[in-house]
Amino acid sequence: MTALSEFRAAPPRPAEMADALRTLRKRGPLVQCLTNVVASQWTANVLLATGASPAMVDNPEEAGAFAAVSDAVLVNLGTPQHRTAVAMGHAVEAATAAQTPWVLDPVGAGALPWRTGIARDLLTRFRPAIVRGNASEILALTGGGGGRGPESVNAPEDALDAAGRLAREHGIAVAVSGPIDHLTDGQRLVRVGNGHRWLTKVTGGGCALGAVMAGYTAVVDDPLAAATAATVTYTVAADRAAEHADGPGSFAVALLDALDRLTPDQLAARAALS
Amino acid sequence: MTALSEFRAAPPRPAEMADALRTLRKRGPLVQCLTNVVASQWTANVLLATGASPAMVDNPEEAGAFAAVSDAVLVNLGTPQHRTAVAMGHAVEAATAAQTPWVLDPVGAGALPWRTGIARDLLTRFRPAIVRGNASEILALTGGGGGRGPESVNAPEDALDAAGRLAREHGIAVAVSGPIDHLTDGQRLVRVGNGHRWLTKVTGGGCALGAVMAGYTAVVDDPLAAATAATVTYTVAADRAAEHADGPGSFAVALLDALDRLTPDQLAARAALS
Amino acid sequence: MTALSEFRAAPPRPAEMADALRTLRKRGPLVQCLTNVVASQWTANVLLATGASPAMVDNPEEAGAFAAVSDAVLVNLGTPQHRTAVAMGHAVEAATAAQTPWVLDPVGAGALPWRTGIARDLLTRFRPAIVRGNASEILALTGGGGGRGPESVNAPEDALDAAGRLAREHGIAVAVSGPIDHLTDGQRLVRVGNGHRWLTKVTGGGCALGAVMAGYTAVVDDPLAAATAATVTYTVAADRAAEHADGPGSFAVALLDALDRLTPDQLAARAALS
Repeated sequence: MTALSEFRAAPPRPAEMADALRTLRKRGPLVQCLTNVVASQWTANVLLATGASPAMVDNPEEAGAFAAVSDAVLVNLGTPQHRTAVAMGHAVEAATAAQTPWVLDPVGAGALPWRTGIARDLLTRFRPAIVRGNASEILALTGGGGGRGPESVNAPEDALDAAGRLAREHGIAVAVSGPIDHLTDGQRLVRVGNGHRWLTKVTGGGCALGAVMAGYTAVVDDPLAAATAATVTYTVAADRAAEHADGPGSFAVALLDALDRLTPDQLAARAALS
Repeated sequence: MTALSEFRAAPPRPAEMADALRTLRKRGPLVQCLTNVVASQWTANVLLATGASPAMVDNPEEAGAFAAVSDAVLVNLGTPQHRTAVAMGHAVEAATAAQTPWVLDPVGAGALPWRTGIARDLLTRFRPAIVRGNASEILALTGGGGGRGPESVNAPEDALDAAGRLAREHGIAVAVSGPIDHLTDGQRLVRVGNGHRWLTKVTGGGCALGAVMAGYTAVVDDPLAAATAATVTYTVAADRAAEHADGPGSFAVALLDALDRLTPDQLAARAALS
Repeated sequence: MTALSEFRAAPPRPAEMADALRTLRKRGPLVQCLTNVVASQWTANVLLATGASPAMVDNPEEAGAFAAVSDAVLVNLGTPQHRTAVAMGHAVEAATAAQTPWVLDPVGAGALPWRTGIARDLLTRFRPAIVRGNASEILALTGGGGGRGPESVNAPEDALDAAGRLAREHGIAVAVSGPIDHLTDGQRLVRVGNGHRWLTKVTGGGCALGAVMAGYTAVVDDPLAAATAATVTYTVAADRAAEHADGPGSFAVALLDALDRLTPDQLAARAALS
């Protein structure tokens, strides 16, 4: 067991976050998304507003070949079907062969055995850059916990030891979402205090964050820095959006506008990192 | 044939509706949705804004096991595929075994023979709490009518006899949508006069209502009361949203905000029941 | 090779566009959409706001029978799966037998071999009224070009010769999207200068335009006029929406409102045709 105190706090400098956003906008990385049908539209719109280029290629006939030419790949287990699960395997295998970074979002892991098995299998056979989930999902990947559907029954702090072990075992970054997002690579710990409760009232709120993480892995070498840049980009924009919204509907609309308008300097100025 | 006059008008008391909404918000029921790909995002966002917790688990590998732990299940036939149809059977069978209420929304029944057969099969083998549809779809389930695609070619009043028979034969509540929504359990009749024509311009407008009905079946024992509470919640919020909207786009956004902000007292005050 | 100068400029008269919109609103054509899961909600909402009636019937069990009773059919290759691809074949075959117009949107053609083969096969065996795509996709259908995912790497002007050849070979209209949309039937050329860059930031922005084209083919005999009417309707509404928007999120919402409110006279007054 790793005590919380064993992690070295490593909040990135604001200038790094600003640079990452500048680079993302300049390169416009192509992000292949194998994601759930509920969040696919929202995810694509979030990527477009942020500055990346989404492509939802999730059939077994094309997923592998496309991963080989994508800049990053997202695998999200929100609504797996037999054929999309096969496509995920092809995509991740091809991404690994091409040294293309990929992100795993094990939605519902723990609560649902079939997809938990898929997530563990992909994680074991291939190494993602980042695993992103709520506390229950992260616990489930290490054999414990397990939520009830897509919602967590644990606080991020409960999953911190599991996240650290998972990160060290696989040599990856692990991001645990919650009121305070916790991100670690097993050595360093970053806490992000931005964000708004309405993000939990927008379906796919977390799923789209995973896609933004994938986008940043294409332009930032350090997976922990990429995960942090994505989290800060998304949640600082959420803070700004909440100022102009009357509820979860107008918040989601304002969030797309805020992502599109967010400047690197604003990102650096408003990031609440510790 | 049952004449309209044979139904006993049974508008619920406003205080009952307010209590139902309070209970839904307090318990946050987990609603498994096996629904169509067009309406899935909208449906999830409507459930979240109302106070329930959506989970779109619709693969054959997981649907049955998940129904056993859900608080309610929605089966919507908007875009069935072979595998999701198999999953629907598993979910409904498991829900029945667990005495978990489920709602059937036979989108396109009558116009499309394959899904009409699926709807009739599920209805015959297992008993939903509520069947929700437009007049053409309800007529189709009793052997008559049949629209052209997802739109009704009949008025709700035309389907009232069929709805009453369907309700009595299966011991369920039947909700017929239209300018005036008609709901019956074969003995009692409730008419809801709230709502706005823009609801017909938002795709999945009716589909999401079916999901809200499922949510209420988890917290209200009487299926007719659950269907009524859902209809009133959704359409009173629509009335409020229409006051702040310029068209169907801003109306949909405002509807999510209005559902999130709707108080039990406002619900009771604005419900137009007869 | 056909030089640009060989096309006869044929901007339709404003009154024709206004009449087409009036007719579309009056008849409310039923448009069967076999489209991608990312754009399906947006596509349905755009059709509803414009005045058509969408029906997403894309399973092999029903697609053919439904095409036989639809007023028009859209085939969009954004996220094909084995079963939806089979359904597309059935739908197009039935539409052809019933002399029902259909539109082909070969999303990702060139970049992705499997779907490129599907697009070419449907195009060769059955004749669509309109093929709509970006420059890379149109070039791919004639054996050249090929983008990277859903985005074009070519300008519309680069694909004009290919579009002309494709149009003449099959006797169809071809619409090439871009900052200036180019539409041709191989003899005539129409350029549409309306539209806004935010359309490229709304996922399914082009996909929904293909659906509107299908809607117009049901009420306008000349495919080039139908494609033009759709392009003008969608992009004039986009111009109006952009005036009231702060970014791609509020733009998408305002576009639905603008489509709903657009009058035939406004359409004629603001169309930028050459």
